[in-house]
Amino acid sequence: MNGKSESDGRGMGKNRIEALTDGIFAVAMTLLVLDIKPPVHLRFETSEALIDHLWMLEHSFVMYAISFVVLAMFWLGHHLQFHFVRHVDRPLLWVNLAFLLLAVVVPFSTNLVGDHGHLQFPVLLYAANLLALSLLLFLQLRHLAASPHLTAPHLTREAVTHLQRQLILFVVVPLASVAVSFHSPRWGMYVYALLVVPAFVPGRIDRLTRVETSGGEPDP
Amino acid sequence: MNGKSESDGRGMGKNRIEALTDGIFAVAMTLLVLDIKPPVHLRFETSEALIDHLWMLEHSFVMYAISFVVLAMFWLGHHLQFHFVRHVDRPLLWVNLAFLLLAVVVPFSTNLVGDHGHLQFPVLLYAANLLALSLLLFLQLRHLAASPHLTAPHLTREAVTHLQRQLILFVVVPLASVAVSFHSPRWGMYVYALLVVPAFVPGRIDRLTRVETSGGEPDP
Amino acid sequence: MNGKSESDGRGMGKNRIEALTDGIFAVAMTLLVLDIKPPVHLRFETSEALIDHLWMLEHSFVMYAISFVVLAMFWLGHHLQFHFVRHVDRPLLWVNLAFLLLAVVVPFSTNLVGDHGHLQFPVLLYAANLLALSLLLFLQLRHLAASPHLTAPHLTREAVTHLQRQLILFVVVPLASVAVSFHSPRWGMYVYALLVVPAFVPGRIDRLTRVETSGGEPDP
Amino acid sequence: MNGKSESDGRGMGKNRIEALTDGIFAVAMTLLVLDIKPPVHLRFETSEALIDHLWMLEHSFVMYAISFVVLAMFWLGHHLQFHFVRHVDRPLLWVNLAFLLLAVVVPFSTNLVGDHGHLQFPVLLYAANLLALSLLLFLQLRHLAASPHLTAPHLTREAVTHLQRQLILFVVVPLASVAVSFHSPRWGMYVYALLVVPAFVPGRIDRLTRVETSGGEPDP
Repeated sequence: MNGKSESDGRGMGKNRIEALTDGIFAVAMTLLVLDIKPPVHLRFETSEALIDHLWMLEHSFVMYAISFVVLAMFWLGHHLQFHFVRHVDRPLLWVNLAFLLLAVVVPFSTNLVGDHGHLQFPVLLYAANLLALSLLLFLQLRHLAASPHLTAPHLTREAVTHLQRQLILFVVVPLASVAVSFHSPRWGMYVYALLVVPAFVPGRIDRLTRVETSGGEPDP
Repeated sequence: MNGKSESDGRGMGKNRIEALTDGIFAVAMTLLVLDIKPPVHLRFETSEALIDHLWMLEHSFVMYAISFVVLAMFWLGHHLQFHFVRHVDRPLLWVNLAFLLLAVVVPFSTNLVGDHGHLQFPVLLYAANLLALSLLLFLQLRHLAASPHLTAPHLTREAVTHLQRQLILFVVVPLASVAVSFHSPRWGMYVYALLVVPAFVPGRIDRLTRVETSGGEPDP
Repeated sequence: MNGKSESDGRGMGKNRIEALTDGIFAVAMTLLVLDIKPPVHLRFETSEALIDHLWMLEHSFVMYAISFVVLAMFWLGHHLQFHFVRHVDRPLLWVNLAFLLLAVVVPFSTNLVGDHGHLQFPVLLYAANLLALSLLLFLQLRHLAASPHLTAPHLTREAVTHLQRQLILFVVVPLASVAVSFHSPRWGMYVYALLVVPAFVPGRIDRLTRVETSGGEPDP
Repeated sequence: MNGKSESDGRGMGKNRIEALTDGIFAVAMTLLVLDIKPPVHLRFETSEALIDHLWMLEHSFVMYAISFVVLAMFWLGHHLQFHFVRHVDRPLLWVNLAFLLLAVVVPFSTNLVGDHGHLQFPVLLYAANLLALSLLLFLQLRHLAASPHLTAPHLTREAVTHLQRQLILFVVVPLASVAVSFHSPRWGMYVYALLVVPAFVPGRIDRLTRVETSGGEPDP
């Protein structure tokens, strides 16, 4: 969009891969709710009968909320890394496209877990899907750390270390889910609720992405 | 997009959470119409027979239009608040993600009301869905009012008060719908048509978002 | 996106309503193709049998292409008008939301025509849908012409006249379709192919949106 | 978005056609995964039974991945060309709309190949779909090369030649797929995996889109 960073000859801008990413996550996060199949062809005489029926869909609702949060976390992880990106090169584009390929599979994996909640295999597949996404975020971060010409100057070693530490959660939680799933597939999925934890921990990333906070006067 | 506000080290820009929001609302608002199931497998000999059949879908059409307007109103409420946002911090991102989680559920709630229009429970669920969205917009406004480093300087106390007053409608209308639904679930839904009222009332918000209106010369 | 035009206090920017519009048109234009139901549960022994079956879907393919072009034309009409918009006020937002409400109905109308191509009523409904869209574009143009503080200075009287003249096609073609549909519903739909004509007529609009064409040096 | 390039009277900006393109590709790439029909109504007693069933969907998974990569490649091809675009005129808009019309058909073509993998005709249709997309990218490049007032100054003859050479792959691979499909429709589809090759070849395009790489200081 910005004429300067887009076409001043310093390399391709990042806005279009961001737009594609935002679009794909928007569609995938919205399609998740389509997996909750409401009782269409049934006719309920009383509200109580309908509530009983909806209650049976409880597992689907929980899976929807979990997968929405999971996709939101990965979108956020992508967002935080791209905050430091200035220009995009070919390897970065390909890592992103692989990331999107696997993100789009999440509604499918969710569907499988929602419909076959008593089996362990869907939980393993779900964990594998997320671990692959985490790996790609890790590869992207490595590429960015090694390519200063692509990034903003405030992507310091400290910021890279912090972003790397954040990815640990994206690896530990799926592994914990797999471990718990040997006990109970359902509880294995509930482990993903842990991903919400960082929302309530004041993160150092806010400090890292913000060098100064005058902010009171308009951009010059 | 704007190189300056995005990566000058003053914190994360707002454009990507806006893009995700716009994308999710765009998909959700378009999916609403998928809930109107046209008569696919039937073959009608005359236009009259088809019109009769479509007439039976009248309730679905009305629900589509109402939910479209409802989502548009919440999108607008989000838009007005984000007009004043300059930078995004972690709590703001999480409030937004929760807002989106619940916005995506609206097509599901609408579907339930459309298919079971004679029961009261779907109307209550619909109202609960919207009240939760209103609560999140309120929390976001409180956070913005308390975080001057995130907002533009023209988010004055007056503007906050006005935005807060606007949210009252988002709370009163669902509550009125619940009250009416005890009488008739169907009329309970029609109450939401009241949300269109502000469209025809000259709002002070236009004045608040516009400090000066020279506008005649190009941006410097 | 642009920090300046968005939050310098001159009114709300246009980028978010543009983003919502682009998103909704993107989804609606993609959903059109979902209405072509490929032969899923059938198993064909030879390619010829499959071709025969696909040939029966010919009407659906033609309707898809026509509705895609129709939506593209309305998107383009919106695009051309918004080219001149600088800031957005409340009436403009509401006209846009009504425009989007009706644009989302186009896949439904298309589906109806595709499935009941032998009846006249779907063709009339389709024409009514498009005429309502044209009316809203016309209202928007009137509002813009009367609100110089919302528009760029190069929205001259000449440009308004030209944009208005363009809308004539959006009214004449649906009316012609209705007239022809009394003879044959199917030919009534084929009339919409006329909308492609302006693609091959060198438009004065290119000259109007372009004041100077140095373009050789980078933006200052 | 950028007030300058959008409404300074030098012609229409490119950002909205980019937004529509990104949106449509995002939806199309996400809808691909909907074509993989998970076993919904079946209940599996063991994970092994589910794995056996999923294994039968292997062809659908491969088709999903291939079509995702194919669409990503065309999006990338469009992205690379638009990197050099400054302003948009009417022929450019129409080439883009035709490009989008055919891109949206790719999920349909994919579906056909996925469901009828033993027949040759779907493979031919798929190749025809992609060849038409390649042709439009070629026409767009020709138009850009002949319209210096629409492009950035660093779209040199060298860059045009390079972009043209890239399109060769987009023509050769579908033709190779057709040739192989006479032997085996399934292997004909696997030929598309060759499209991933350029990901691992260091491209000169990175050098062409990047004139200088100081990048160390913030945009002025």
